This record gives sequence, structure tokens and C-alpha cells, in this order.
Amino acid sequence: MATLRPAILDAALRACTRAQTRRPAPRNTAQNRPQVSRRTQRRCISDDARPPLPRGTPGPSKVVAPKTRLAVGVVFIGTLIYSMATGDYQPPPPSTYPPPPRSGQQLDSPSIADRDSLSKRESGVTARSPMRLRMEAFIKENQQEIVRALEALDPSQRFQIDTWDRPNGGGGISCVLQDGKVFDKAGVNTSVVYGTLPRAAISKMRVNHKALDPDVESLEFFAAGLSLVLHPQNPMAPTVHLNYRYFETANQDGSTNAWWFGGGTDLTPSYLFDEDVIHFHRNIKEACDAHDKDYYPRFKKWCDEYFSVKHRGETRGVGGIFFDDLDETEKDQESLFAFVQTCLGAFLPSYLPIIEKRKEMPFVEKEKQWQQLRRGRYVEFNLVHDRGTAFGLNTPGARIESILMSLPLTARWQYQHEPEKGSREERLVNILRKPIEWV
Amino acid sequence: MATLRPAILDAALRACTRAQTRRPAPRNTAQNRPQVSRRTQRRCISDDARPPLPRGTPGPSKVVAPKTRLAVGVVFIGTLIYSMATGDYQPPPPSTYPPPPRSGQQLDSPSIADRDSLSKRESGVTARSPMRLRMEAFIKENQQEIVRALEALDPSQRFQIDTWDRPNGGGGISCVLQDGKVFDKAGVNTSVVYGTLPRAAISKMRVNHKALDPDVESLEFFAAGLSLVLHPQNPMAPTVHLNYRYFETANQDGSTNAWWFGGGTDLTPSYLFDEDVIHFHRNIKEACDAHDKDYYPRFKKWCDEYFSVKHRGETRGVGGIFFDDLDETEKDQESLFAFVQTCLGAFLPSYLPIIEKRKEMPFVEKEKQWQQLRRGRYVEFNLVHDRGTAFGLNTPGARIESILMSLPLTARWQYQHEPEKGSREERLVNILRKPIEWV
Repeated sequence: MATLRPAILDAALRACTRAQTRRPAPRNTAQNRPQVSRRTQRRCISDDARPPLPRGTPGPSKVVAPKTRLAVGVVFIGTLIYSMATGDYQPPPPSTYPPPPRSGQQLDSPSIADRDSLSKRESGVTARSPMRLRMEAFIKENQQEIVRALEALDPSQRFQIDTWDRPNGGGGISCVLQDGKVFDKAGVNTSVVYGTLPRAAISKMRVNHKALDPDVESLEFFAAGLSLVLHPQNPMAPTVHLNYRYFETANQDGSTNAWWFGGGTDLTPSYLFDEDVIHFHRNIKEACDAHDKDYYPRFKKWCDEYFSVKHRGETRGVGGIFFDDLDETEKDQESLFAFVQTCLGAFLPSYLPIIEKRKEMPFVEKEKQWQQLRRGRYVEFNLVHDRGTAFGLNTPGARIESILMSLPLTARWQYQHEPEKGSREERLVNILRKPIEWV
Repeated sequence: MATLRPAILDAALRACTRAQTRRPAPRNTAQNRPQVSRRTQRRCISDDARPPLPRGTPGPSKVVAPKTRLAVGVVFIGTLIYSMATGDYQPPPPSTYPPPPRSGQQLDSPSIADRDSLSKRESGVTARSPMRLRMEAFIKENQQEIVRALEALDPSQRFQIDTWDRPNGGGGISCVLQDGKVFDKAGVNTSVVYGTLPRAAISKMRVNHKALDPDVESLEFFAAGLSLVLHPQNPMAPTVHLNYRYFETANQDGSTNAWWFGGGTDLTPSYLFDEDVIHFHRNIKEACDAHDKDYYPRFKKWCDEYFSVKHRGETRGVGGIFFDDLDETEKDQESLFAFVQTCLGAFLPSYLPIIEKRKEMPFVEKEKQWQQLRRGRYVEFNLVHDRGTAFGLNTPGARIESILMSLPLTARWQYQHEPEKGSREERLVNILRKPIEWV
């Protein structure tokens, strides 16, 4: 497995945990791993099994492509911010990017980006680091693990990796594979954003987060997440989407003001194999149950509601889980981080067995064409209904290629296409029109 | 040519001009044809050359497919209403469809739909008919002429024709051709809508139309238009879009309150043939110049601004014209109707010579793939930025298949695709980034 690790991804990960390689400390994710059921843990590819990072390698990550932008980066950041604000929030006009210098005494206080950068240099990322740094390290490690596992599905498949920095701190890593033997298109992205929220956005976010200070002109914020979409080549293999993210606003002294987690994962088959859907949901349910027995039913319902192609009267796929705004009113920060860790850890065991089983199944042209029609619906959801995509596309300077990596390689729209009566295609559509319980 | 006329379309047209076939009257469009330059007139397929409608055929149009819906119908209606309202107008919730019965004395007065229906039965459609009926007749005749001309491009091509009625008056005709030899997908739709505007929508529309009565709870409205999108199979042949529409609100006594025209046409090539673009623009310019020398430059600019794929920093295509809100503050109703008639009449001469020249040009797989990538951008514009599509998709009960007939049969999204330096593909993108003057 170690030989499959892309060198550029290694370099990027080192930028995040660099101090750690100089001054070895207990691995943060291992240390903070939640106490989950034996079964769930067994299904995860162990974090500890990963080969140690090479030492003495050059310091900061090199920006390999594309040129640095004032970029929000990937779509989940949009979801993150947008889902907190009500429908009509618009990002500030280009002239406010980058944010204006802070006034008065604020001018002298370092930004949270500065503080985090210093903290990483001085102490690395440990269990005592701010959640911002722990989340960043966590998603980057998982990104690497997922990319490695997906490349291992077929030796001919290699992800293209683009790393970029943001001028005010943060940056992103996009890993995209295209026209592969197993995947038509696969994207596994991480993004870390430091920025400033204007007063209007703050008041809107307060609807869900009372901890937000209503009496300030602006607030520094931090957002980090991992976002993944895999569109397999074989029409018998389902598309999968995943996204886990953390959002935080900071007080003037750099301490945490408000924070929350969001995310989820959902499956979008073109052909239904009940056993696959049950396997997927069972894995997610176990991850949820290990933390709270209410989570799976709540977040499964939320997923069916969110991933709804409203104008078609159907869900995008057969669901999974979706949640947002999980803050101190839900559970303490450590518990929620542990929950997100378990969820993300459950991804590979929930999806790998499905893609392994379906990637080489025989199919005919008509089935490929049905997949293409379903991909058209995927595009419709992402471009018309997904709040995160909309926000990203409306954000000046956003990295469009990272936002739209979620779109399939190819899609099809056929006027008034109706599946044949009693066909497998019709059964899928019926289930999308009326989501069912899988476990 | 007469043998190419689809029987169903004939029947639908008869529903609109039925009384006329019983009691022959001067053809309304011929009678009201504006005085345009000889040259523009020569380019149009003459209205008078059309074979007369067969007589004694059964009366009302039969609804052949699909089932009647409370449908806004086609996308231009969305554009029409939406473009008058500011960005955040949302259609009323489903419970207000159909609109509640009108209160007080209004209950006794017939709706404009009733009045129009009676007027058609009694007197047919003549130059003295309300503009609503004249516009309806005009677009339906043109739809038939365009469908006939497009089918004539290849004898193997036949449009599928769906006609539907709306319960409160009005209806639509969708003509769609798919997977043809010349066109991957071609849609030529007409739609006629009678409905009620709530107070909130009225106040927003007043920004552009002071004639709107601000002191009423609701207003009856009428909207009619023709909408067309042709996606050719050959990558050397450009996609074309056209849409002309008329909107009116009525006073309680059925007289016209406010009215306006909107529309335009634009060309979207994958490969640039300057002579094609010049031919297209020259035809439109001549149509405009025949009415007002300011129109072409004004509406060409408006087109470049409207059909902008903002998140890509490029226009959708090489433009054409676009206009909206043309009411009595612009010119009198007859003059504007004449202008719209000339514009729509200029369509076939502006596009047919192009498709005839390009439809059988040789091309290679790489060029087909570039066309597919450009179609992806077309999808992005239509689903993300087009206000009409957004409004249509958000309207409960809308006829989704008619709205989304504008999407290509197939499209492609490739991560970070960049055209080669100095290539024809790069030249196209450069022009889309900085629109130029073609005539």
C-alpha cells in the first residue's frame, strides 16, 4: 500500500503536520479516536497501520497547480456557510475580497490564521491543539487514505493532485481521477478556509447559533472539510458522495466564538442492488449508533429531504445521512468530533465492497444510457438545488474546477424518457419517488 | 412543403384560428406586417406562400399527451414573469394554485381567458382582436413554419408533438426532435398562460412598468411565447436559441392594464466560422434596423450581458439580441408587435443557411468531444444562471419536460480541460471571454 501514496499528497500532508515530523508526538487522530463498537472499528482501515511520514523532507508544500486564487475552494465550504444563512444571502462583492484591515485595536492582534500557523510550527497538531487544526489534520489524513484505497482498485488509475494556498491562510488539495477503468470521474478534495464574515451573514447565522456575537461588525471564521464524489464507469456500480466539515468563528482574542459540524454521505445507483444499499446504510447506521441511537433515523430523514430533486419529485439517490449545525446544543465538541471521525472512518468499508463487486459486471449499451440519464438528474440536483454549489459559484474568485468536480464526466437528457413498465429502471424511479427504510 | 406539415400541429393551430377557417378573414399577420426593408422581407419565408389551412376538420385540439397539468409550461413564461420581479421573488406556494376565486363583484365578471375564448369563437382572430389573441396566433403559425423547415433539412427527421391544455385557459404545444441525423435535440415550443399575479409580484413588476395598478390584491395576467433551442449533431454546426414573448395584465373589466414584449435569439458554436456568425448577426441587425437603428446595438449588448456564464467568466455563445420590458415607454404596441414579428420572421433566413452548410461537414472524435464540453457549459448556464429556467423549475406543477427540453441530449465535464495554445478551440474561448462586434 505504501508505494501507492502519491508524493504530492504526502508533501501537502506534511505541510499540515510538519512540526510533528520534527518533534514526534502521539498521532492526534489515533489519540482522539472515539470509543466505538468493535465491529465498526474492525471495518475501518486502521489509521495506525499507515506507514510513518518520511522525515527530514523539505518544509512547506509547493503549490503545484493551479495559480493561487482568492478562492473559497470547494463546494462544501459553500454548503457550510450558506446553509447557515437564509436563502437570500449573497457573498460580498469582489471589492471586499480580501477583507478590509480590521480597525482599532484589532489591527494589532494576530488573525486566527496567524495563530494557527504559529501553533503548528511550534507544537505540531496534538489532542490539545484547537479543533481547527485537529479537523484539518484529520481530513487530510483521510483524504490520503481514501485516494490510496481508490487507486488500489485498479493499478492503471492515478489521481491528479492539485494543491493551492490561500493568501490569507488555508488552502486546498484536489485529487481528481478521470476516464479511469473503474471511475469515469472521481474527486476527493479537502479545503481549509480562513476568512471574515460580514455583519449581515452573522445575523442570519444566529438563527441557528445563538453563541454568535450579534454586536460586532465582522467575525473571523474558519472552515475545513473533505468532499468526495465518485462516478463509476460501470452502470451497475453506484455513484457515492461524502462530505464532512467543521465551521468556527473566533473572538477578537482568537478564542472560539461559535462552532459546528456538518456533513453526510449518500449513494446514487442507476441500478438497484438491494444488498448494496443495505450494506451502505448498515455501515452508516453502525457508525451513528456508536454515538447516539437517534442519529441514524434523524440524519437519514434529513438526507432524503436535502438530496431531493424537487422539480422531478424524486430524491437524488437512495440516501444515507446528512446533518448540519451540530453544535454545543447537540453535544460537546469532543463528542461531535468523535462522531464525525467515526462517520468518515466508515466510508471505505461502506463503499469499497460495493465497487469491488460491481466494477466488472457485464452490461449492455442500453444500461449505460440509463446511467447517463441518471447522471443528468445528478447534474440537475447539483446545479439547481445544491445550496453549496450555488454559493460557491456565486462567490467571486471561487475555484470553479473544484466546485464542479462533482459533475459526472458525461450526462444525457432525453425528452420524455419513461422507463418500461415492470423494468429495473422503473423500480429505481419508484423508490426515488418514495424513499424507503433500508435497515 | 405542404406534405411536411404535421397533422397534430395543424389541429393545434386550428384550435387557435378555428373561427377564422369558418369565416375567412384577412390573415392577421399578413395584414399587420410592418413596413420593413425589401431585403429583410425577401429573406423571410413568406407568410402568404403558406398553403391555406384545410377546412371542415374537427374542432378543438385534442390533448394527445401528456395529461393536463396546472402547468406554467415552458421556460420563457418563467423568464417573462421572473425578469420583471426582483431576484428574490418566489412563486406562491402550491396551495394558491389554482388561484383563489376572486372576491366581491369580480366573481361575476368573466376572466380574460373566458373573454378570449368567446371572442375567438365569435370573431376568430383579426387585426382588431386583442393583442393576446394576435400574439397567440402569430407564434403558433411561426412554430408550424419553423418545424416544417427543420424537418425538411432531412427527410428522416420528425418532431414529436405534444399538446396540452391548462384548466384555467391557455395551453401549449411542444415539438421536440431527438437523436436525429441533423439535430441531437431540437425543441420548438409555444405556450399560452392565463393566471393571477399576487400583490407582491405586482409591486416588484412596477419597478419597470408604472402602468401596473398598485392598489389591487391581485391581477389577471396573460403570457404567450415561442421558445426554440436547436442542438445540431455536427460539432461544426452551432446551437441556436430563440424566444419571443408577450405579457399582459388585465383590469377588472378585461381591458389591458400593462403589457410588454421580450425575447431574442443567440448563437452558440463549438467551432467558430466567422462567416456564419456574421450572417446570423447581419440578419438580426437588418430586422432590428427596419424598426429602429438603436435596437441592434442596444439589444446585442443586452444579449452579451444576459447570456453570461458568470462563474466561468465567458458568454454562453457569440450572442445575438436580447430585450425585455418593451412597453409603451419604448414605442406603441403595434410598432413593438411589428418589431417582434420581423425578428421572428428573420429566424429561418438567419439560421437555415448555416445549418445547411455545416450539417454534413467532416469531423473527428476530438471535435465531437469539444462540442460535448461546450454543451456542458450550456447546461451550466441554463441550470445555474437562466432566470426563466429557475423560475419554471420552482413553479409547482410546471411541465418540467418542456422547460428542460433546452438541455442538450448529451454533455461532458472534464476536470481542468484547457484548449491547446493557438487552437481553434482556444480562439472560441477567447472570444467568449471578450465578446466582439460582428457587423
